[in-house]
Amino acid sequence: MAGNIFGHILRLVSFGESHGPMIGGVLDGFPSNFTVDFSGIALAMERRKPGVGKFQTTRSETDEVQFVSGIHEGKTTGAPIAFLIANHDQRPADYTGLSNFFRPSHAAFAWDKKYGHQDMRGGGRSSARETAVRVAAGALVAQLLEKYGITISACVSQIGSVKAAVPDNAFVPELIYSTELRCPDTEAAALMDILLAELKSAGDTTGGVVSCRITGVPAGIGEPVFDRLQADLAKAMMGINAAKGFDYGDGFAAAESLGSAHNDPFTFADNVIRPASNHAGGILGGISTGEPIHFRVAFKPVSSLGMSQRTVDIHGTPKDLTIKGRHDVCIVPRAVPVVEAMAALVVADHMIMSGIIRHNNS
Amino acid sequence: MAGNIFGHILRLVSFGESHGPMIGGVLDGFPSNFTVDFSGIALAMERRKPGVGKFQTTRSETDEVQFVSGIHEGKTTGAPIAFLIANHDQRPADYTGLSNFFRPSHAAFAWDKKYGHQDMRGGGRSSARETAVRVAAGALVAQLLEKYGITISACVSQIGSVKAAVPDNAFVPELIYSTELRCPDTEAAALMDILLAELKSAGDTTGGVVSCRITGVPAGIGEPVFDRLQADLAKAMMGINAAKGFDYGDGFAAAESLGSAHNDPFTFADNVIRPASNHAGGILGGISTGEPIHFRVAFKPVSSLGMSQRTVDIHGTPKDLTIKGRHDVCIVPRAVPVVEAMAALVVADHMIMSGIIRHNNS
Amino acid sequence: MAGNIFGHILRLVSFGESHGPMIGGVLDGFPSNFTVDFSGIALAMERRKPGVGKFQTTRSETDEVQFVSGIHEGKTTGAPIAFLIANHDQRPADYTGLSNFFRPSHAAFAWDKKYGHQDMRGGGRSSARETAVRVAAGALVAQLLEKYGITISACVSQIGSVKAAVPDNAFVPELIYSTELRCPDTEAAALMDILLAELKSAGDTTGGVVSCRITGVPAGIGEPVFDRLQADLAKAMMGINAAKGFDYGDGFAAAESLGSAHNDPFTFADNVIRPASNHAGGILGGISTGEPIHFRVAFKPVSSLGMSQRTVDIHGTPKDLTIKGRHDVCIVPRAVPVVEAMAALVVADHMIMSGIIRHNNS
Amino acid sequence: MAGNIFGHILRLVSFGESHGPMIGGVLDGFPSNFTVDFSGIALAMERRKPGVGKFQTTRSETDEVQFVSGIHEGKTTGAPIAFLIANHDQRPADYTGLSNFFRPSHAAFAWDKKYGHQDMRGGGRSSARETAVRVAAGALVAQLLEKYGITISACVSQIGSVKAAVPDNAFVPELIYSTELRCPDTEAAALMDILLAELKSAGDTTGGVVSCRITGVPAGIGEPVFDRLQADLAKAMMGINAAKGFDYGDGFAAAESLGSAHNDPFTFADNVIRPASNHAGGILGGISTGEPIHFRVAFKPVSSLGMSQRTVDIHGTPKDLTIKGRHDVCIVPRAVPVVEAMAALVVADHMIMSGIIRHNNS
Repeated sequence: MAGNIFGHILRLVSFGESHGPMIGGVLDGFPSNFTVDFSGIALAMERRKPGVGKFQTTRSETDEVQFVSGIHEGKTTGAPIAFLIANHDQRPADYTGLSNFFRPSHAAFAWDKKYGHQDMRGGGRSSARETAVRVAAGALVAQLLEKYGITISACVSQIGSVKAAVPDNAFVPELIYSTELRCPDTEAAALMDILLAELKSAGDTTGGVVSCRITGVPAGIGEPVFDRLQADLAKAMMGINAAKGFDYGDGFAAAESLGSAHNDPFTFADNVIRPASNHAGGILGGISTGEPIHFRVAFKPVSSLGMSQRTVDIHGTPKDLTIKGRHDVCIVPRAVPVVEAMAALVVADHMIMSGIIRHNNS
Repeated sequence: MAGNIFGHILRLVSFGESHGPMIGGVLDGFPSNFTVDFSGIALAMERRKPGVGKFQTTRSETDEVQFVSGIHEGKTTGAPIAFLIANHDQRPADYTGLSNFFRPSHAAFAWDKKYGHQDMRGGGRSSARETAVRVAAGALVAQLLEKYGITISACVSQIGSVKAAVPDNAFVPELIYSTELRCPDTEAAALMDILLAELKSAGDTTGGVVSCRITGVPAGIGEPVFDRLQADLAKAMMGINAAKGFDYGDGFAAAESLGSAHNDPFTFADNVIRPASNHAGGILGGISTGEPIHFRVAFKPVSSLGMSQRTVDIHGTPKDLTIKGRHDVCIVPRAVPVVEAMAALVVADHMIMSGIIRHNNS
Repeated sequence: MAGNIFGHILRLVSFGESHGPMIGGVLDGFPSNFTVDFSGIALAMERRKPGVGKFQTTRSETDEVQFVSGIHEGKTTGAPIAFLIANHDQRPADYTGLSNFFRPSHAAFAWDKKYGHQDMRGGGRSSARETAVRVAAGALVAQLLEKYGITISACVSQIGSVKAAVPDNAFVPELIYSTELRCPDTEAAALMDILLAELKSAGDTTGGVVSCRITGVPAGIGEPVFDRLQADLAKAMMGINAAKGFDYGDGFAAAESLGSAHNDPFTFADNVIRPASNHAGGILGGISTGEPIHFRVAFKPVSSLGMSQRTVDIHGTPKDLTIKGRHDVCIVPRAVPVVEAMAALVVADHMIMSGIIRHNNS
Repeated sequence: MAGNIFGHILRLVSFGESHGPMIGGVLDGFPSNFTVDFSGIALAMERRKPGVGKFQTTRSETDEVQFVSGIHEGKTTGAPIAFLIANHDQRPADYTGLSNFFRPSHAAFAWDKKYGHQDMRGGGRSSARETAVRVAAGALVAQLLEKYGITISACVSQIGSVKAAVPDNAFVPELIYSTELRCPDTEAAALMDILLAELKSAGDTTGGVVSCRITGVPAGIGEPVFDRLQADLAKAMMGINAAKGFDYGDGFAAAESLGSAHNDPFTFADNVIRPASNHAGGILGGISTGEPIHFRVAFKPVSSLGMSQRTVDIHGTPKDLTIKGRHDVCIVPRAVPVVEAMAALVVADHMIMSGIIRHNNS
């Protein structure tokens, strides 16, 4: 497994298993002399934390981020920023016996094929717990981007069949995170709540969609032809657990549209030439246009069900399986800060590659 | 612009502009002693070639691939495989005057912001012409994969609002490429044909969706947590011109489904444990399961319209713009071999990284 | 600072400062299902540990390696292997006041230019303490190589002007590490001992040379033209603190020799064609030949002297500086396991890239 | 073979064989809007060209560099810069029969082990001809560096046992390249000339050393701990054909020196704090100090001798071998521009990574 390093110049290394003593990360290539707002990082961790909502795992973690290198007296030094997050509530006993089964649609099957073993304790690296590392790093990177006027905000725009309206002005993190489902459309959120309550009692799960909006990105980042901005965003998002789809701008809907309706005509106002609309989603030819960037990520239903499922054990004998662990009815609200974090990593990496953010602050 | 190299170990370098003397590529990391079927590469080029269908640019190119290194007496040597494709029919005159305009939704606007100039001759690197390089390399790589029992087949599954049925058994390259629209659903194709004829006469364009199916990939390729197989596929696909979305398995539809319906239960038959269904799309936890891999790529409408568009010139003065060049009504049929090519590069790269295909054949 | 990740497929991430709470590393891409010999790693750490010899810093560290991920029940899982090494004896007070000075030939000057600050506490990342991370990772990787019949052994071949004889059969780790100066030539070692005692009492320091021999590497690893085996070895060695030179085979002496004397004629014996001599040092054209690989690394004198030195303070005022910290008279004996560790990383990375060691053990 | 791409952000791809139709390269990541001085590139090619000196191969090549992409109307566009160099005088017949032999110390032996074949026509990729690609790219990059006040100059400082004096003020490219042996010490050059004449008539060869000096590099480039500036320079130099050693600053001599003599004390003059001497060679802790950078590269004797050599054929039968091709008595003078080119690539790559040279000129 060699895929635990993300990025071109600003690179995040992720390590740790769900049921080991800790998880952690190393962020290499972050500029020096940047004053870290630790409370902002704690807030991001709080927003991702398990055990918050009634439809989420009851696993309880404080998710305190312990920075062990690269920061001195509150400022980054230019050295790699390493951090640790302890696992307090791993309860491996919940998973006893599970190693004898292939859980439907669970990563353990593929893991076994690749590495020659199932990590029996809750999925190991494939657990959503690993995403806490991304959120910690992403929160730090988002602070750097803020200095350059860039803001990133995501929210839930769909759960199961319930679709929310998420206009541009709905992307207000404080409002979004004040709701349990991370959905700014209160009417839709009420319906989602009803759906999830039903699913919870049935022991079932569902998927959903996270929408993300990035403002303030200057025109000119993105590296065609292969490292286009949307290509790196897509890779980042499709590397999140349970992600099944990515699109940006009009996305899949663009496939149905006509050029005459989809094209964004240019206008001239306030001495600036810019597109009058933004079907493009802020990126043309792989390069940011200066308009807001927006994209969506689709997530599948959580594979661990409370209800009984038919499957086979490791000897191939058919069995009914009921998974006892503490699981989410819907992972999507918890994916919101993860989407924001990965977006921050991609944008900052490209800002540094383009020389707009200086790699080092000397 | 540093983004012209794709892949981890098997790497494709792409160079050349639409209206320069030639385009070309270098494929590094291809195993030695592999016997190349040049006619197979010529066939792939033929399938991507402009000027074939009545809804496509009338640009005429022979697209002969001239291999200049890395192959000796028909066999790969282990040295980088470089190849050139001449541009015969560039007609830069068609683009005269266009450099004074910002064409709506065209990459030239962002290009100007990044590089300080618009390449006035037909889009330069952002032209679909560049994808010929990928098809040439992908065709060679697909031959290598075939040796390992892996086949890749893509087709058009949607044009504008017309959706085609593309069941698993429709993925037969010979049949698909015998149709002008690369769509195996003849009923849908007839409707697409009507739609495109209307759009052509109106000077309008539309988008569509390409679906791809890969069979024979052994379980165990993909490098979690960041270099998951679907993450690298997403990056590859979102790096194709005009791509707006990617999903795999049930994709965006998975967001609406329930875990009880979406999960693929395991069964035991013929001494093998495998999922009974394939909502997962052949990948779990970022690693191939041994089942067929299927994914979709959405494309936006071509931005160059035959009809007049309102935009501004480089001084900001509003103008009506009519683009005279030879353009496609719908790029999607021509994207089919490009999707196949990029998929081949990703799968082979991961096969090599996993050590299943030996990097060198010594 | 983005340079804290080493390797192509097998990658080591290093983090931590000399005077922070801990240092550590992440090793990504190590095969799964490998049984780790923890005592072997402890032994390597013991061999590098400060405070052992009488000419070395009296800093005292237990250098226990705490593995926090990637190993389960003594076996690697395929997940990234993360480990922590606590700093117990950092004594930052020793460095009080030093931040007002530019210490001659010390990295802090360049650090200040790049990162906008001097890390006042003992050099931070530029301290030799960071090499403990490499030794821990290298020791694990060496165990993997051993399984493939590859052994790596280094020793001191020169200290100051005293040169040792280090014939092939002198590369016996047990013997080398049983000596304080890691020099198998006992006569030379006695002279070195005298020299170092003189320098210690004078408050002066000196440099030296480490020689390394690798046996059992199969023919065929190394990736010309840029990632030649010797190129990656050179990069690895020149990335060690205080290293000033690298050569392999006859090295700089080859510059003086004649082709007729330097060439290694081929012979045929025991059914194998191989070179009769090994002036080449086991590598031709960037690729291993199957013969033992041997190379040298030159190190400069430690820059922190016990004697007074003339320099300037940060305001440019000339000052006499005496550095009070606990320093080595000669770092070279402690570099021996670091050279071995970096060599192991390079060889294993190339073995994996060539597909000889399977990246994953599935 | 995956090692044909060099660099982090500014990357050179090299392709082509000595006896194929052409060699060439792709330079990705070069800033846009840079006006290219083509005559400067032609001059660099002229300086590397075979067939110039009386001790060199009589192979005759015009070595004209044909740029086929990335440059428009004399200016870089930000697109990858691809270029071709035709092979006119390959004479593969000279190598007829050689494929039956393992030539002593020739790369073909290792090539065979790795790739399963000997490229019988003059060494293929391992030929010094490949370095023409590096010189072309390096000459372009050197022009960019010049804009930032950086100059790179190399010369021959040793041939066989004859050592030249090369003080700092001897690094004047016009003077150096006006001499056949690229050696500014005329007395030493005369002795070298005598030595080479003797070796030529004997059919023997010898090695030598190239020294290089880089001025104008600002303090602060280099990425510790692994991508130190000297580590990347070492990798670059040890990736040149026939290179056996690299050192910088006092290099191997530093191993013998005392700290009190080797340390560079800081002084304050003209309002600048800088080292009073430069034993360090312009780099401390892996980061440039602002002082001139100087390093050396040792080369082995050419392995193809005019005299008869004892070896075995591919069946292991002992044979006397006399190589008929057109070969150099000493490659070292021709390595001078290659060393300069590789140094330019490394320095520019680090300047871009540090954000001092903006990756793109937008």
